[in-house]
Amino acid sequence: MSPAYVHQALTLPGPLPLDNGQALEDVQIAYETYGNLAADKGNAILICHALTGDQYVASTHPVTAKPGWWERMVGPGKPIDTDRYHVICANVIGSCIGSTGPSSNHADGTPYGMRFPVITIRDMVRAQVALLDAMGIARLHSVVGGSMGGMQALSLAANFPDRVERVLAIATTSRHSAQNIAFHELGRQAIMADPHWRGGDYYGEQNAPDSGLAVARMAAHITYLSEEGLTEKFGRRLQDRPDGQVGERAFGFDAEFQVESYLRYQGSGFTRRFDANSYLYITRAMDYFDLAEEHGGMLADAFAGHARGKGARFCLVSFDTDWLYPTADSRHVVHALNAVGAPVSFVELSAPYGHDSFLLDVPALDRVVKGFLDG
Amino acid sequence: MSPAYVHQALTLPGPLPLDNGQALEDVQIAYETYGNLAADKGNAILICHALTGDQYVASTHPVTAKPGWWERMVGPGKPIDTDRYHVICANVIGSCIGSTGPSSNHADGTPYGMRFPVITIRDMVRAQVALLDAMGIARLHSVVGGSMGGMQALSLAANFPDRVERVLAIATTSRHSAQNIAFHELGRQAIMADPHWRGGDYYGEQNAPDSGLAVARMAAHITYLSEEGLTEKFGRRLQDRPDGQVGERAFGFDAEFQVESYLRYQGSGFTRRFDANSYLYITRAMDYFDLAEEHGGMLADAFAGHARGKGARFCLVSFDTDWLYPTADSRHVVHALNAVGAPVSFVELSAPYGHDSFLLDVPALDRVVKGFLDG
Repeated sequence: MSPAYVHQALTLPGPLPLDNGQALEDVQIAYETYGNLAADKGNAILICHALTGDQYVASTHPVTAKPGWWERMVGPGKPIDTDRYHVICANVIGSCIGSTGPSSNHADGTPYGMRFPVITIRDMVRAQVALLDAMGIARLHSVVGGSMGGMQALSLAANFPDRVERVLAIATTSRHSAQNIAFHELGRQAIMADPHWRGGDYYGEQNAPDSGLAVARMAAHITYLSEEGLTEKFGRRLQDRPDGQVGERAFGFDAEFQVESYLRYQGSGFTRRFDANSYLYITRAMDYFDLAEEHGGMLADAFAGHARGKGARFCLVSFDTDWLYPTADSRHVVHALNAVGAPVSFVELSAPYGHDSFLLDVPALDRVVKGFLDG
Repeated sequence: MSPAYVHQALTLPGPLPLDNGQALEDVQIAYETYGNLAADKGNAILICHALTGDQYVASTHPVTAKPGWWERMVGPGKPIDTDRYHVICANVIGSCIGSTGPSSNHADGTPYGMRFPVITIRDMVRAQVALLDAMGIARLHSVVGGSMGGMQALSLAANFPDRVERVLAIATTSRHSAQNIAFHELGRQAIMADPHWRGGDYYGEQNAPDSGLAVARMAAHITYLSEEGLTEKFGRRLQDRPDGQVGERAFGFDAEFQVESYLRYQGSGFTRRFDANSYLYITRAMDYFDLAEEHGGMLADAFAGHARGKGARFCLVSFDTDWLYPTADSRHVVHALNAVGAPVSFVELSAPYGHDSFLLDVPALDRVVKGFLDG
């Protein structure tokens, strides 16, 4: 299945092995590329997207018609300079923007729904590497990602150490905490409680579980913003009322506070571009993510392939107002890399936007990204 | 309407004026008392309960058959010593444990539902004071409350300064922040998205909006616990699987992590004892709460009735792991009290449980409470 709006896609030549022991057949990967691949194929940068992101990192989204989600970072002359690098961004498996996921057709010709296998971050990375294989790219100049993209960057480095020279992981973690899992579980329960979810078999029905998905998105969105950022942006300011009263309480249940209106807008806008089952599968993959556990319980062992400077160079970036994946999470990764003697730089940037800072206007991030990639 | 399980209740003799300009007729207040009222009526302590609390502060809950929510604090020989004090705790208006709320009957003989007026914390306090009037209690020895109970304690002090000698406000705030409002709005949206909500007219129907209410409770519950507390209590530990596998991933969507199971239990248990419309109304009242705004925008002006030591004594308690109403919120109140010269003591206690610390085993809190009330 390839939505008409997907620009580039390929089907993997063989089955994709999964952490659950199964293999996924006929896997399609939808992707975008920017800039030219050098003759020696040595200038490829793989960007990994976040939970609800997609491959349209620096081009207009075909559904929302909005600019790419990282246009400020990727393009000619930008920190990730497409005059210099060949940038690749692929939709993760399990998602819904052209790569194989629960909304894709099973071999029987009907959508997988909840028959889709539960995948992991490492499974997503296996698909990314299979795409690189198909492109003939043996070794990436860099892998770059924020949030779940950073998990993939770390997982790629851990599991495919020969495939990458530089690893840039932003606002991320090596494992989901109990609180991280709790917020995701809340979102999944909201989706599965929506009667339109129908056990995942809502494709082709008149209604999708949009209400549940909107609530899930609202919950997640609160975690993406800092308390300070919310206060600065909205405080306790009231909406102007439809009856023309400005800044007066309506004593009702419509969105009165600006922050309520904002959250409702975030929730409802999201349902137009995202599939509820994909939200279930991708949050599950993130909750399962524990890079140390995958490697015998010691995070340093995950990076054994980079010991004593023989592998990639690493750069970790955190934000001081990110309470989803706080600085301590990045520091934990840095300590593990230090323990094996891998070269790593680490910076905590100050920005008011919480976890979402990696997507927003933080000039210091631009400088860190450019400096690390070009250095 | 008086549920058969309510032990004590009275109907206010006159209409209760509300902040929205209306008045509520035939208001019933359900309450519990503990200990004897002194002949001079000078030993009465009003305890105000939190969002989903009730009047069963130190007696078995008639629905859940669980012990009272503050048995560790209230009773003979306990920090709030019922051998010494006459303790009163009333169900707030808008709630569902015997006091008038959206599940009560309107004058037309059918439940209010969303016809119930939007109330405020001050309206709840007016009802508490009307109850004290009916009991002939002119001046409380103390008013005590945690979380929303603390809001009521501060509101009572601000609006009825002559009615109280000591004000003990624990883990609370003088106004809801944008993040506080956001979490409540998320819960309300989950309830109102549940098709069984039916615009609030679900009384007598086969199904109530239990799924939505459970999701709302899960969201709130995350905010009641600290990240550290969640990690300590659950970490990433897996449930034992029904098939007997211990600590193995099931690659499914059942509750696998212990924290998921805990949240599901919290959500589903809650729906058995609480009304979804009451949840809407009480969260709205909390979101509206801004003690400074009620008094011209300056929090110090809210406490003018306690200026220069002529009014009550205050004690504020916060917890270092409470991210719902962090210590800064209490400090803000303390500064306002200082500004008018009201006597106030303030302590930040160290406890691992987050906001819920005020309900849990924190011996230092016991000492602070007893010291302040008996002193």
